[in-house]
Amino acid sequence: MRKPILTLTTDFGLSDHYVGAMKGVILGICPQAHIVDISHEIAPFAISEGAFTVAQAYRCFPKSTANVVVVDPGVGSARRPILVEAAGQYFVAPDNGVLGLVLAEQQHKVRLIANERYFRKPVSQTFHGRDIFAPVGAQLALGVRPVKFGKVIHDPIRLDFEKPRPNGRRSWVGRILKVDRFGNCITNFHEREFGELVQKGFTLAIGMTEIERLARTYAEAKPGDLCVIAGSSGYLEVSVNQGSAARQMGCQTGSLAELTVW
Amino acid sequence: MRKPILTLTTDFGLSDHYVGAMKGVILGICPQAHIVDISHEIAPFAISEGAFTVAQAYRCFPKSTANVVVVDPGVGSARRPILVEAAGQYFVAPDNGVLGLVLAEQQHKVRLIANERYFRKPVSQTFHGRDIFAPVGAQLALGVRPVKFGKVIHDPIRLDFEKPRPNGRRSWVGRILKVDRFGNCITNFHEREFGELVQKGFTLAIGMTEIERLARTYAEAKPGDLCVIAGSSGYLEVSVNQGSAARQMGCQTGSLAELTVW
Amino acid sequence: MRKPILTLTTDFGLSDHYVGAMKGVILGICPQAHIVDISHEIAPFAISEGAFTVAQAYRCFPKSTANVVVVDPGVGSARRPILVEAAGQYFVAPDNGVLGLVLAEQQHKVRLIANERYFRKPVSQTFHGRDIFAPVGAQLALGVRPVKFGKVIHDPIRLDFEKPRPNGRRSWVGRILKVDRFGNCITNFHEREFGELVQKGFTLAIGMTEIERLARTYAEAKPGDLCVIAGSSGYLEVSVNQGSAARQMGCQTGSLAELTVW
Repeated sequence: MRKPILTLTTDFGLSDHYVGAMKGVILGICPQAHIVDISHEIAPFAISEGAFTVAQAYRCFPKSTANVVVVDPGVGSARRPILVEAAGQYFVAPDNGVLGLVLAEQQHKVRLIANERYFRKPVSQTFHGRDIFAPVGAQLALGVRPVKFGKVIHDPIRLDFEKPRPNGRRSWVGRILKVDRFGNCITNFHEREFGELVQKGFTLAIGMTEIERLARTYAEAKPGDLCVIAGSSGYLEVSVNQGSAARQMGCQTGSLAELTVW
Repeated sequence: MRKPILTLTTDFGLSDHYVGAMKGVILGICPQAHIVDISHEIAPFAISEGAFTVAQAYRCFPKSTANVVVVDPGVGSARRPILVEAAGQYFVAPDNGVLGLVLAEQQHKVRLIANERYFRKPVSQTFHGRDIFAPVGAQLALGVRPVKFGKVIHDPIRLDFEKPRPNGRRSWVGRILKVDRFGNCITNFHEREFGELVQKGFTLAIGMTEIERLARTYAEAKPGDLCVIAGSSGYLEVSVNQGSAARQMGCQTGSLAELTVW
Repeated sequence: MRKPILTLTTDFGLSDHYVGAMKGVILGICPQAHIVDISHEIAPFAISEGAFTVAQAYRCFPKSTANVVVVDPGVGSARRPILVEAAGQYFVAPDNGVLGLVLAEQQHKVRLIANERYFRKPVSQTFHGRDIFAPVGAQLALGVRPVKFGKVIHDPIRLDFEKPRPNGRRSWVGRILKVDRFGNCITNFHEREFGELVQKGFTLAIGMTEIERLARTYAEAKPGDLCVIAGSSGYLEVSVNQGSAARQMGCQTGSLAELTVW
């Protein structure tokens, strides 16, 4: 039988013991789990960045993968823990919008995680990653059925970074979902919706910068020239050949990006 | 049979090849090992931070886990390599205090690692992680019994960060064991010993700052207000709701923390 | 049967989803793979640092290990993907010199990776790590024979960081291959070739600094004194006991190092 896969996406960083503690809990429950780190370097409390990262990663994983996502500024408050079934996989996270991009693109069922028999006791007020999300993820990897954890709900929190909003007939205001390590600025303009539209000519305005050039590869642009690429993520991104577009434009995750097509 | 688990805690960072080299050695000896990174971002040579990190992580792992800890400023000098049995697990480390918090809270047996037949040859003067600690950890994961590695010793090095020292009848001087990624400052005042004492009122002085408020969760405090929480680590920690207590107080790992109770 | 081992060395960093995406692809093809991260913190586009890192790591791994190396400034251009067989292991990388130190020290066979049936479709123009190198590495881990991927070639790209060049009868100009986390500056002067030569006296000049002292261990040098050590990597490195040699000398990866022996 295939080993169950469990992915982790958090803002815990790699210096502290938090990720190690979660893995210990997971292996105590499901010793055969194949644990895969997606990222623990989500900026602290950056829900949209966590949402982007898990939405990019899960599509490369096989069915039945359990994805545990902990970007959780509201830990210890009344925010709900949820379990999402989508694309044949499982997602476990706080209900704060961090699963929004998965919900936006996949048919899904959402449950409230309420059955405390699956929690690690005592449940700390400050570390639900270890005491709720890791054990629930491990139980899913072990084969426990989603219905065991709680009832279906229909009002998971959705945030406005999920897609650009119209701003006139041929103009939209979107955001930068992520600045990656190379300084590429990944917007929330998806190729599916905007790939055709930009073919005939466009202006993408980010801060004081206007980009009008479309390229197919990084190498196609002259060093130093900003261009828009339909990136490997499926979104339009702004790049510079062997340079940092983010530094050149002075922008960051969350910055506004205004697209006008001709 | 359960796959043997081997954890790694080092100050090697994640940029260099050092951690990868250790893993190659481990898998060469014990191919079925499940290797779990606790942290490789312990500050270089920061023994107390390494001690805190491994002491937090091991308690989440199942029995028989082999924990390899390499924070080793004295590599190549006369400092001894040791093997500790405690809590049904194994710990392999240089004898420099880095296992002090495990020794302080668990019954234990300490051995000198002396049997060179378990080392990788030739033993480098500068990388005992690869040549001594990784292979010994892997042999333990493989089932080699501790007695094979060397004799019991009774004088492992213990350092003064393990617990606060009294400073008057209702006052103690402790330290910050760790500033975590969120800026929470985790002290060495353990809830076990001090949790009751602070209930009736206290002052915790760190640098120029005095904190007198106890909270149960991060969310309970007003944004910007420092408070003391009995954290998920079991120690009292100083936190700010969605902010960095360390930045606000200007303190760091190792800073003094003076507690007075009423 | 032994689980196949697949190592990853990239400049993708650990914040983005890129490494997680590669792992998903690998586990989809070869679920039993034991994936080991060597480093994802190679400086962006730093081919010599990637070359050094993989060349240090592979020698600690067992036969049949598949090493996937993605430091790929030319992604999307005409640069070739290659597969190297050397030391009983496999290496998959762009043909840009990043496998140069492996090629320099091992008998090898190099193939062009041309058989598109092993690629993930559609192949993105900007993320061959996910769409070419990860799936080819996973197929090798699964047991697909190298001949299936493409023809042998004899002109892989080799760069000049591989070894120092002579500069007079008893003098050579080399480079710093890597500044490690502790500030040790690892040169490309290999102990094999230069270990004997420096015994009788030498000057190693890096920037404005001249080092003339040889030590066996870090602890042997006085705090603050620069010395040359034959490091665990097999290369001569410049170190300071418990300090950063790189900071003290003001040098970095790629800096020149001129050796004169007596």
